[in-house]
Amino acid sequence: MATFELTKEYLSEIEEAVSSQNIDFLNTQLEDLFPADIATILYQLEGPEAHSLIRLLDTEKAAEVLSNIDSDDRKKFIKEQFTVEEISKYVNLFDSDDAVDLLNEQSIEVREQVIALLEDREQARFIIDLMHYPEDVAGGLMQKELIKVNISDTVSDCVEEIRAQAESVDKVYAVYVVDDDQKLRGIVSLKQILLTRKNTKIENIFEDDIVFVDTTKSGDEVAEIMQRYDLEAIPVVNALGRLLGLITIDDVLDFVKEKAEEDIQVMTGITGEVDEDDSVWLLAKARIPWLVVGVIGSLMAASVIGWFEGTMAKVAGLAIFIPLMASTGGNVGIQTSSLIVQSLAEKSQISLSLGKRLSKVIRVALINGLVVGILTGIYVYAIGKPELFYVVCLSLFSVVILASFMGTITPILLDKFGVNPAMASGPFITTANDLIGIGAYFGIAYLLLPI
Amino acid sequence: MATFELTKEYLSEIEEAVSSQNIDFLNTQLEDLFPADIATILYQLEGPEAHSLIRLLDTEKAAEVLSNIDSDDRKKFIKEQFTVEEISKYVNLFDSDDAVDLLNEQSIEVREQVIALLEDREQARFIIDLMHYPEDVAGGLMQKELIKVNISDTVSDCVEEIRAQAESVDKVYAVYVVDDDQKLRGIVSLKQILLTRKNTKIENIFEDDIVFVDTTKSGDEVAEIMQRYDLEAIPVVNALGRLLGLITIDDVLDFVKEKAEEDIQVMTGITGEVDEDDSVWLLAKARIPWLVVGVIGSLMAASVIGWFEGTMAKVAGLAIFIPLMASTGGNVGIQTSSLIVQSLAEKSQISLSLGKRLSKVIRVALINGLVVGILTGIYVYAIGKPELFYVVCLSLFSVVILASFMGTITPILLDKFGVNPAMASGPFITTANDLIGIGAYFGIAYLLLPI
Repeated sequence: MATFELTKEYLSEIEEAVSSQNIDFLNTQLEDLFPADIATILYQLEGPEAHSLIRLLDTEKAAEVLSNIDSDDRKKFIKEQFTVEEISKYVNLFDSDDAVDLLNEQSIEVREQVIALLEDREQARFIIDLMHYPEDVAGGLMQKELIKVNISDTVSDCVEEIRAQAESVDKVYAVYVVDDDQKLRGIVSLKQILLTRKNTKIENIFEDDIVFVDTTKSGDEVAEIMQRYDLEAIPVVNALGRLLGLITIDDVLDFVKEKAEEDIQVMTGITGEVDEDDSVWLLAKARIPWLVVGVIGSLMAASVIGWFEGTMAKVAGLAIFIPLMASTGGNVGIQTSSLIVQSLAEKSQISLSLGKRLSKVIRVALINGLVVGILTGIYVYAIGKPELFYVVCLSLFSVVILASFMGTITPILLDKFGVNPAMASGPFITTANDLIGIGAYFGIAYLLLPI
Repeated sequence: MATFELTKEYLSEIEEAVSSQNIDFLNTQLEDLFPADIATILYQLEGPEAHSLIRLLDTEKAAEVLSNIDSDDRKKFIKEQFTVEEISKYVNLFDSDDAVDLLNEQSIEVREQVIALLEDREQARFIIDLMHYPEDVAGGLMQKELIKVNISDTVSDCVEEIRAQAESVDKVYAVYVVDDDQKLRGIVSLKQILLTRKNTKIENIFEDDIVFVDTTKSGDEVAEIMQRYDLEAIPVVNALGRLLGLITIDDVLDFVKEKAEEDIQVMTGITGEVDEDDSVWLLAKARIPWLVVGVIGSLMAASVIGWFEGTMAKVAGLAIFIPLMASTGGNVGIQTSSLIVQSLAEKSQISLSLGKRLSKVIRVALINGLVVGILTGIYVYAIGKPELFYVVCLSLFSVVILASFMGTITPILLDKFGVNPAMASGPFITTANDLIGIGAYFGIAYLLLPI
């Protein structure tokens, strides 16, 4: 098929068929659809309808659909509609990493009951094993399902192993080679296995120069490594070098996408992972913290301006440049920090030293300060307030330099303390730069104007 | 190996070895490194040094290193250091999609000379064919290298085809099944081929229910589809359904990452794709356009405030809330638009209608407006200016509603006109919202205050 797009007409046909229990129609429709597409339909249905749709599917397809649903939606859906017996029937067929994700969304009691009920006891062991790892490190991202052979085996042993595992390992990326201590020694590609005589020893054909990660490697770094080396899958080992699991590219792609969305939410002042579909209350709550920070910052700015009310009353025109100072500070700060954040993400590169970084940023600021200074200077003359020329231009110039400085050191400091540096392009910093802008402006006005 | 990190010490050892032509040392070092790691080292070397390093490698590895370098850096490096004969020697070994990328960075003359010099004439045909497609659609992202079999072939024909193509097709994802008209009919996985008897007909084992895209599909959509269906590779067909090429997940991952970086640059007001390593001049130039927009907006705000200077002189305290109105407008606008942008990116879902979207956004705005209004109201009383209570609170409330409205319709309109909707969280909108905030404030002050 080409690609699926859910239309309103199609959705109402499905809804009607579900409510009238038109099983034949649903079976024909759903048979042709991929699990991800059925998941798209489920999002649009009420809980009980979605549940009866799932039950119409054969168990394997239903399990795939459930592993395709977004975590937040699934948590609620499973909790409200499914018995532990049902959950365990589906989780039994999940890849172990997806099984852990689903179970982590549920309460501890549900988790334990489901694991106890699992028919496939190896799956149960895999799940218990994976639950030890935090979600965002290699151990938490890996699946236990993989195909491995001993280094002393032959190609035909290898084929037999693939045959034995064919059902539980859906996609075979490569066969991993271990020694008697289960230490990872290398890989053999399926292509190699296909093209080599059956009695050839694995040790004569395997590739020993491979990239792997430790269970403790952060998800970010795993993503960066897989991208750098163009890998479809990366093996995960423990501190002794023993092969424990495998991280596949589809999980990493999801991770990269989520990370990008998270960065954008951090930058735009939204807390918690919400999307447009969430409730009004949840959406409002996600925004309030940073709005309040912004308001507090602005009220602090109000206090600063308050001290200079007398000055403003005496010097006509001083008040009108308040927005200029605040917004230029904010804009320059965000521009600077976003480039620093981007460069901090490139872990494999040698980063510039702080001194070199600052010197470069300041040189850029000098050029930009000059441009906005000239523009503003022209305006100051045009409105007939030449007496404000030095104050406005000098303040603007200082604001550009200060905001550039802040935009450079803030992300570096945040990164050092383990905080997401994207925060440095967020509302806290914009508010801080607004304040700096206004403070610098009135400070310079106080020094230069004859008041 | 575990993962490579370039240290300063290691880099200076390499630099010394290059300048003293210590070939033995370099050979031992470089043999153990992956192409992507050698690329990381090249970024740190001067052009001629990098060139001599490349020439030390065997041709195949050198080609892989070159295909791993960032487009901007490579353009300059190849242009300054390589002869067309050298370029053609390496491009001969590239995957066709990477070959086109490299050639598109060079002038038309270089391109034509390199293609004329290519030893592998099939590669030349592939390249010429791919050059017809724009860079950011499926046709421009695909490579021509893939393994295909006729539907009437047997498994052993299939293995022979893989053997024949083993050299030019580096990673085999699956074997594509076509009919006599070269129309795509389905795929067979390598696992299936390994586990099936050699004389079985392909038509009895192939999977016909597969996802493919047309050459004209946008890169964004290809990325979204591959992610939705967890694909490592997706076949590309023409309007007649004939199999033309293959897009692999590593290219899509790069695409997703670049897109996310681009969105962040658009949101933070940086034009052109720059990074911290670029020259001071380039960095300054990338920021000036939006800084200027911000300054112009602020000077327009200055004019608005200018009209009310008389009012401010009469009503003490009016000026101090200018930053509050401007920054709240900006913050609310960015928060709103970023959620809309995120939801616009989910192409497979049914989007809310504009009416429903707005009604939801306004309800969120009512809650948030109330919270910031109360907070500000307390401040107004605390500083002893109760006469400003209604003006400040009512303006703030209007600003939240107006900015929410703008934050909703702007990305939707941009998306409709084919502009990246992330622009709606950028400096243009912040500036517009600053202006709206200040306009609303003074407008309401003018109406409510006894002046």
